[in-house]
Amino acid sequence: MALSKKPVTGMKDILPAEMQLRDYVISVIKDTYGKFGFTSIETPCVENIANLTNKQGGDNEKLIFKIMKRGEKLNLENAKEEADLVDGGLRYDLTVPLVRFYSNNASQLPTPFKALQMGNVWRADRPQRGRYRQFMQCDIDILGEPSNLAEIELILATTTTLGKLGFRNFQIRINERRILKAMAAYSGFPEESFDTVFIILDKMDKIGLDGVAAELKECGFSEESINKYMDLFRGLETAQDGLGYLAGKLEGVLEAEVVNNLREISDSVSATKAADFEMVFDPTLVRGMSYYTGTIFEIAIPEFGGSCGGGGRYDKMVGKFTGSDVPACGFSIGFERIILLMMENGFQIPGKPKKIAYLIEKGVAGEELCRVIAEAQSQRADGMQVLIARMNKNKKFQKEQLMKEGWEEFKEFYREPLK
Amino acid sequence: MALSKKPVTGMKDILPAEMQLRDYVISVIKDTYGKFGFTSIETPCVENIANLTNKQGGDNEKLIFKIMKRGEKLNLENAKEEADLVDGGLRYDLTVPLVRFYSNNASQLPTPFKALQMGNVWRADRPQRGRYRQFMQCDIDILGEPSNLAEIELILATTTTLGKLGFRNFQIRINERRILKAMAAYSGFPEESFDTVFIILDKMDKIGLDGVAAELKECGFSEESINKYMDLFRGLETAQDGLGYLAGKLEGVLEAEVVNNLREISDSVSATKAADFEMVFDPTLVRGMSYYTGTIFEIAIPEFGGSCGGGGRYDKMVGKFTGSDVPACGFSIGFERIILLMMENGFQIPGKPKKIAYLIEKGVAGEELCRVIAEAQSQRADGMQVLIARMNKNKKFQKEQLMKEGWEEFKEFYREPLK
Repeated sequence: MALSKKPVTGMKDILPAEMQLRDYVISVIKDTYGKFGFTSIETPCVENIANLTNKQGGDNEKLIFKIMKRGEKLNLENAKEEADLVDGGLRYDLTVPLVRFYSNNASQLPTPFKALQMGNVWRADRPQRGRYRQFMQCDIDILGEPSNLAEIELILATTTTLGKLGFRNFQIRINERRILKAMAAYSGFPEESFDTVFIILDKMDKIGLDGVAAELKECGFSEESINKYMDLFRGLETAQDGLGYLAGKLEGVLEAEVVNNLREISDSVSATKAADFEMVFDPTLVRGMSYYTGTIFEIAIPEFGGSCGGGGRYDKMVGKFTGSDVPACGFSIGFERIILLMMENGFQIPGKPKKIAYLIEKGVAGEELCRVIAEAQSQRADGMQVLIARMNKNKKFQKEQLMKEGWEEFKEFYREPLK
Repeated sequence: MALSKKPVTGMKDILPAEMQLRDYVISVIKDTYGKFGFTSIETPCVENIANLTNKQGGDNEKLIFKIMKRGEKLNLENAKEEADLVDGGLRYDLTVPLVRFYSNNASQLPTPFKALQMGNVWRADRPQRGRYRQFMQCDIDILGEPSNLAEIELILATTTTLGKLGFRNFQIRINERRILKAMAAYSGFPEESFDTVFIILDKMDKIGLDGVAAELKECGFSEESINKYMDLFRGLETAQDGLGYLAGKLEGVLEAEVVNNLREISDSVSATKAADFEMVFDPTLVRGMSYYTGTIFEIAIPEFGGSCGGGGRYDKMVGKFTGSDVPACGFSIGFERIILLMMENGFQIPGKPKKIAYLIEKGVAGEELCRVIAEAQSQRADGMQVLIARMNKNKKFQKEQLMKEGWEEFKEFYREPLK
């Protein structure tokens, strides 16, 4: 078969300019999250296929890259179905591996456990502009902290990081699964249809309130429920204090503690934040993953239409592995979107070392070459980046090329004349 | 199917203590190689199966984790052989992807191109202690530099990095494929048997000179050739200047330029090195990969039996992709072995920020909580790592646990008495 120069379908080579930015962003993330007491962990990119197809991953489970069994275990002739040939898959997110990791290593981990994971995940999505089949995810999670200290610290750590990367004027939108449910229950939607209602509600920013009402009607929900639901949202639009308004309206359906908890998160973050952003209660925020059990939140950056990350509380997932639940809450940054935005905005990496290129004539060798290298070694020891390259025939063109890659100063070395 | 807490066979979870060391080593590597003008790149973990099975990878090609075709393309019933079901695989090294990357992106890359790659590779080896099926590789390569400046810079960059990681008294063993061949040709071995001879020679450090002679005899090589070959090695053992001795002996079989080139590499590195190591000409050094065409080298660290990395010149590989050869030379650090050695030696990461743990009583909430968080935020801004955790019932035990994870200072916060 012919060799292919292209990467596999839907995946990409990352060139030096983008990698420099990625490395910088990774270092800021690791440093900042470290200050909040998060520690890095790593899990294998391959997971057991049973773990990846346990219904926690929603639609992502349809997008798994599956890995063939190996050696004697592979019996092509007798294989009746795919499961006879496959035993592993590439992870489609970092949450399933984290929960498996925690279940496997809990005895060696502190309580609460604050984890930072940065790693690639794979999804066989239809290839499209800006969306790749291999991409980096960046998650922080706190396991074992039942109080809203978890949410507050996750939001503070994430927003501090975004601030250090130069993002301003963004929003953290926040909601609660229990508020979503109480609003639906108050309106009289049947409990088994809540998920359908939420999927439609999730389209609010695209189709508006009337669009949501129309779609709910199409699905056959009662006019009375739809009207009650719409009235709630209309009331919220004009309310000075959305949470207070809901607390009053939903009295008896919603525990006061849920509202107080959400308010405390919002207030504490606003009072102690180290970046320029706003906390916004957004009763239309749904977040797709069905495993969330409480608070949910999302980053909205004005320059970027959609969400640039999000997370929430998922107190019931560890129990799926261990049999006993552990409170858990996580926040994931949309790493690839952040990189895209920073590149589009021409972000300049601060504090880069000075870059000096040494151009040496072809014949320079032996002791002469040693003297050049020794000088480079000394400048490197002083913290500078020094490239040593042979002088090309077209020196002017060579310098232009090097300048494009950021080499800002040049030094030329010629053969010493024979004595 | 039941969920599995364990990682997949042969792969491992990496816990916080090891990750801290890995992150530190990665940052030293990126920083130091950067000073030498190497730029990071990244390729997808998945490669086209045709690229992975093109005979460049030697035995590694038998160890590929293969990835199933997806969707309509997968037709289990009509599949006659594995190739009908598979179109990609996890990369087993970083050299094949680098050469594909270079072929794909050459027009956007400088000449010479100095690449740094750090990334996971996968090999379905039999699981054994300290050897995993997913492991990190760390390669630097220079493409487009025909002169020995490439070798000199690769060895200086790698040894400077090892020195910064605290390694002392190690060796860089160096040899040349053309010297290996000239020694075999001089001894009268038939050219088509050179690889067999080298595989046996490679065992020298385990079975000694007599063992090598015995194995060569078993393979049916002529006594005359074996004796001539052994005489060369015996002569080298007593020679003051091994390279000079060989240059004399192999006159007519080996070009003088090959010896001069190797000597220049060794002398230039020794004269300009920034770490405590020795350059050693090792005529028994073979290196397995068949793609090497010139210089080959290996890191030998006394505390560690085997090689801790190596590399060499491979001038014929880019041509396999593009049809025209490009001079290429690379050096790979045995990342996992380095980490293992550093952990065994109890390496202390220098310059770690101060770690302070705040323990707060359960009822602390609202404004009181905000004051605690504000204090933490201020200490974080000052560069400290601050953990905020709820006080457990057994505070003494909690502190002991936290101290194990490196939290060195504690601050306690209690509810303010009601007024």
